[in-house]
Amino acid sequence: MSAISVQTPWVLVVTVYDCSKGGNMKTMKLGMTALSLAVGLGLGGVAMQAGAADAPTLSKDDFEKAKTLYFQRCAGCHGVLRKGATGKNLEPENTMKLGQDRLERIITLGTEGGMNNFDDIMPKEDISLLATYIQMDPPKPPEMSLALMKERTKVYVDPKDYPAKPLHDRNWENFFLVIERDVGKVAVVDGDKHEIVAHIDTGYAVHVIKALEHSTVSKAENPGRFWYTMGRDGKLNKIDLWQTPDKMLVAETQIAYDARDVAISGDGKYVVGGAYWPPHFVIVDAMTMEPLKVVSSRGVNVDGDYVEESRVAAVYDTPNETSWLVSMKELGQMWQVDYSDIDNLRIEKIDSAKFLHDGFFDPTGRYFQIAANASNKMVVVDTKERKLEAMIDVGKLPHPGPGANWNDPKCGPVGGTTHLGEGTVTVWGNDPAGHPDQAWKVCYTVETDGPGLFIRTHPNSQYVWADQTKHPEPEVQQTIQVFDKDTHEIVKSIRITDKPGYAAVHTEFNADGTEVWVSVWNRKDSKEPNGEIVIFDAKTLEEKGRIKGFYAPTGKFNVHNRVEHVT
Amino acid sequence: MSAISVQTPWVLVVTVYDCSKGGNMKTMKLGMTALSLAVGLGLGGVAMQAGAADAPTLSKDDFEKAKTLYFQRCAGCHGVLRKGATGKNLEPENTMKLGQDRLERIITLGTEGGMNNFDDIMPKEDISLLATYIQMDPPKPPEMSLALMKERTKVYVDPKDYPAKPLHDRNWENFFLVIERDVGKVAVVDGDKHEIVAHIDTGYAVHVIKALEHSTVSKAENPGRFWYTMGRDGKLNKIDLWQTPDKMLVAETQIAYDARDVAISGDGKYVVGGAYWPPHFVIVDAMTMEPLKVVSSRGVNVDGDYVEESRVAAVYDTPNETSWLVSMKELGQMWQVDYSDIDNLRIEKIDSAKFLHDGFFDPTGRYFQIAANASNKMVVVDTKERKLEAMIDVGKLPHPGPGANWNDPKCGPVGGTTHLGEGTVTVWGNDPAGHPDQAWKVCYTVETDGPGLFIRTHPNSQYVWADQTKHPEPEVQQTIQVFDKDTHEIVKSIRITDKPGYAAVHTEFNADGTEVWVSVWNRKDSKEPNGEIVIFDAKTLEEKGRIKGFYAPTGKFNVHNRVEHVT
Repeated sequence: MSAISVQTPWVLVVTVYDCSKGGNMKTMKLGMTALSLAVGLGLGGVAMQAGAADAPTLSKDDFEKAKTLYFQRCAGCHGVLRKGATGKNLEPENTMKLGQDRLERIITLGTEGGMNNFDDIMPKEDISLLATYIQMDPPKPPEMSLALMKERTKVYVDPKDYPAKPLHDRNWENFFLVIERDVGKVAVVDGDKHEIVAHIDTGYAVHVIKALEHSTVSKAENPGRFWYTMGRDGKLNKIDLWQTPDKMLVAETQIAYDARDVAISGDGKYVVGGAYWPPHFVIVDAMTMEPLKVVSSRGVNVDGDYVEESRVAAVYDTPNETSWLVSMKELGQMWQVDYSDIDNLRIEKIDSAKFLHDGFFDPTGRYFQIAANASNKMVVVDTKERKLEAMIDVGKLPHPGPGANWNDPKCGPVGGTTHLGEGTVTVWGNDPAGHPDQAWKVCYTVETDGPGLFIRTHPNSQYVWADQTKHPEPEVQQTIQVFDKDTHEIVKSIRITDKPGYAAVHTEFNADGTEVWVSVWNRKDSKEPNGEIVIFDAKTLEEKGRIKGFYAPTGKFNVHNRVEHVT
Repeated sequence: MSAISVQTPWVLVVTVYDCSKGGNMKTMKLGMTALSLAVGLGLGGVAMQAGAADAPTLSKDDFEKAKTLYFQRCAGCHGVLRKGATGKNLEPENTMKLGQDRLERIITLGTEGGMNNFDDIMPKEDISLLATYIQMDPPKPPEMSLALMKERTKVYVDPKDYPAKPLHDRNWENFFLVIERDVGKVAVVDGDKHEIVAHIDTGYAVHVIKALEHSTVSKAENPGRFWYTMGRDGKLNKIDLWQTPDKMLVAETQIAYDARDVAISGDGKYVVGGAYWPPHFVIVDAMTMEPLKVVSSRGVNVDGDYVEESRVAAVYDTPNETSWLVSMKELGQMWQVDYSDIDNLRIEKIDSAKFLHDGFFDPTGRYFQIAANASNKMVVVDTKERKLEAMIDVGKLPHPGPGANWNDPKCGPVGGTTHLGEGTVTVWGNDPAGHPDQAWKVCYTVETDGPGLFIRTHPNSQYVWADQTKHPEPEVQQTIQVFDKDTHEIVKSIRITDKPGYAAVHTEFNADGTEVWVSVWNRKDSKEPNGEIVIFDAKTLEEKGRIKGFYAPTGKFNVHNRVEHVT
């Protein structure tokens, strides 16, 4: 084969070493225009060109737009290098077999397997751009050094100026922090007065918000006034709920280009941020927000294959040990990282199953229960022994979000999860000390109308709430279901909106468990303040009222419940 | 800038995304011929082209030849991606400044800084090829999966057929295993009879040979009959000294494409192999040689920068703990890896200094003393506390090899190292319990005539031996120096050969310490059996005799001394 064959005055075939595939040669056919455009692209310029012979191309502007859309809507499940995880592999060798039309149809309508439908929130031309983009080779993002992270650290309020007591007389311990996804804000809401107190600028599409729980330090030492938000863009923001609304954002840094989770050390000294790209986690000074140490998460998975895009999913403080649990999504490993001496960093690399995503502790705080979604398992880690405790077979693509623990008349203490892949809630025993026969075995399942993202309850409530956000049909997507802890029967299905392109997502109880808050997620016009939170009476299950004026509200975090580890 | 500008009918400028640099664009100017050649290259095809505008090119055959030469002679110090470590960075942005002539001169004559001279062992045309090759972008080698390693595992003698007692009546506990570098063999030598027993096929340029030491298991459990060799090509071979010479090679596997060290677990269950490329270490079943687990060593160095080519240098069993020490050369970290539960693998990542290379234990087996050569330090790890103990400033580019411990009249127990970068032996106190004031402080230094690789002694000897193999002058390179443990004076300089292209390297005592063995390394004709081992009387320092017929003998390992941890 000749390296360069002039087929028309403007078309040439060049063979390029494509690094994203670890070294295979790829033929690219490019018209003069396409090649000229490649130049300006910088990162990923030629990756854009390096598809198969008949790979589609995009103009520079369309490529950049598609890259951004992909990052915001697709990378979470499919990966920036598109090797797949929660979602399918989207490398050209797979996507090109499907072709433009089929890909557009899938993006438009979604699939029962957990793929969202985007017809209600994305214009046809964006869907078409994405369908083309995923048939081209993925551009590889750059690394990020500790030095760059330090440069991107900003202090808005000097720690020495932190107030000694709240500068407002609201009941901040019943505040809710609400993610306003697409505008990169977090709303602070007064849970007593049902009023929005502030919209705080954070990173884009904050995934999780955490404060130190009281399991390890006294309320006096750390009253949970400080909250930390992790944006998908790797921005890590620190919020002080004792400040006046205009001053609540006290510091920020950036630890990655793509990130998800954050946790605080039990001693209150450190914050750890988990990143998707670059694949690493970063230990940050919890007071000053100065990044201190970067640990790469690139590694070899439980099958013995090297994974370049080895992403960090859930990150949690272990209530009873001086450590964090850092979930290695693609590796299928839980890393228990001890923060008591970060210069001699101790890590247990606990083998489990792929792909680890989101989890929650049992009521004792000893066992962490996390979804291995591609394996349809809940993985249980014993944080005391720092080893794998059990793996429980559950439904298709488990996704508990913040999860739920309660007491079952038969099985005793149990935990439960919703699933991305089916309309089922699976409930298992999680009390090996008191109920060894039921421990880590499925106690029962509840059939719901559709796959969901989040399950939640409260010790003072008789009910468990599950959303169905992943179902493609609006009437199901907009309906939340409630079942009884004793009868296991669904006692109520509540449609909280019927607006096209709006969905019901995520429940959170207030501090005393008398109210349940559910989000009306205005996905279609997510940058408008048309989102709502619907408040239900936790006993009667009747609607008590609505708080309006949110920008695409999704996850909600009640200060008391999260800080006191109430699930 | 235009992507493609026809400057002559045959020359074009294309901008390529060069992955080996983490994403910067590089301009390449290529003639038709050069570009045609790129096609056939596969791995590294266009990397070869992606140099600066006036980058030199090589024919496909010359490129492949240069790649092999570079791997065999240069990669060890400079890295396959040429980012530098013990040796300088050799990426085009640096090498092209020097240019072809200067590069050829450096390769020919070497430098005082530790760079070898190759004029005596490499033809001019090879030197010229290398000088050109290092001005071109380095090709990136592939990954290696656990599955592939398993495929490459071969059993020559089934463990159930291992003999219950030696099948020969030689005194195998005074055998020497001698590395025959360039022919990929290890010679087994009878230390009593001064006879070569066997030349065993191993990997290429075996770097280290190890057996289980008796510090952790009884002689009965594991008499040190089994030896493990690690080749530079990643071949890991198992030798049984109880077998007849033709059957001594009992099993092998391959854990990498480029590797250095190996260690056995204290319980005798596992062997761990440390690799340069892919950057990882591999845990292997010590009986069957089946690879069990791969752990990536890619990571973030002590400066906070991600290192793709993060190589594993020295790997040692910790005599008193259920762990190995795995040195992360470029990261500047020692990883203490606990093998007691490899499914929940515990690792302490101990920060120290760059670039970690070779080390040895103190006499108690608690402290590991390892060279951080780019920092001119000896790093001391406390394997009991699993943390950094101390860092000692020594000379330029310390390199102790197997190292030496002895007692000093003033400082008590001491350790010593030679240096790649200067003719000095540095000696420090290493007994914090008995001599806290001298511990981890330099006790004295001895000036030698030239930089060397190895230092060695024996409890029954009054003397310490240091080679000078890194000195460019033949008369120094061929001379070994001996100094007195009490007076610190050099008592003898012994030139063991005057043949051009031959060097003196590496000393090892026999079991009872009455003899000292030194290699005549026939570097020039290393694939001929012209190498010798010169045997000296350890007391009189007079030559006792020579064993001839070795292929480039370098490192020597006496069974008793290594297995009983005699240094």
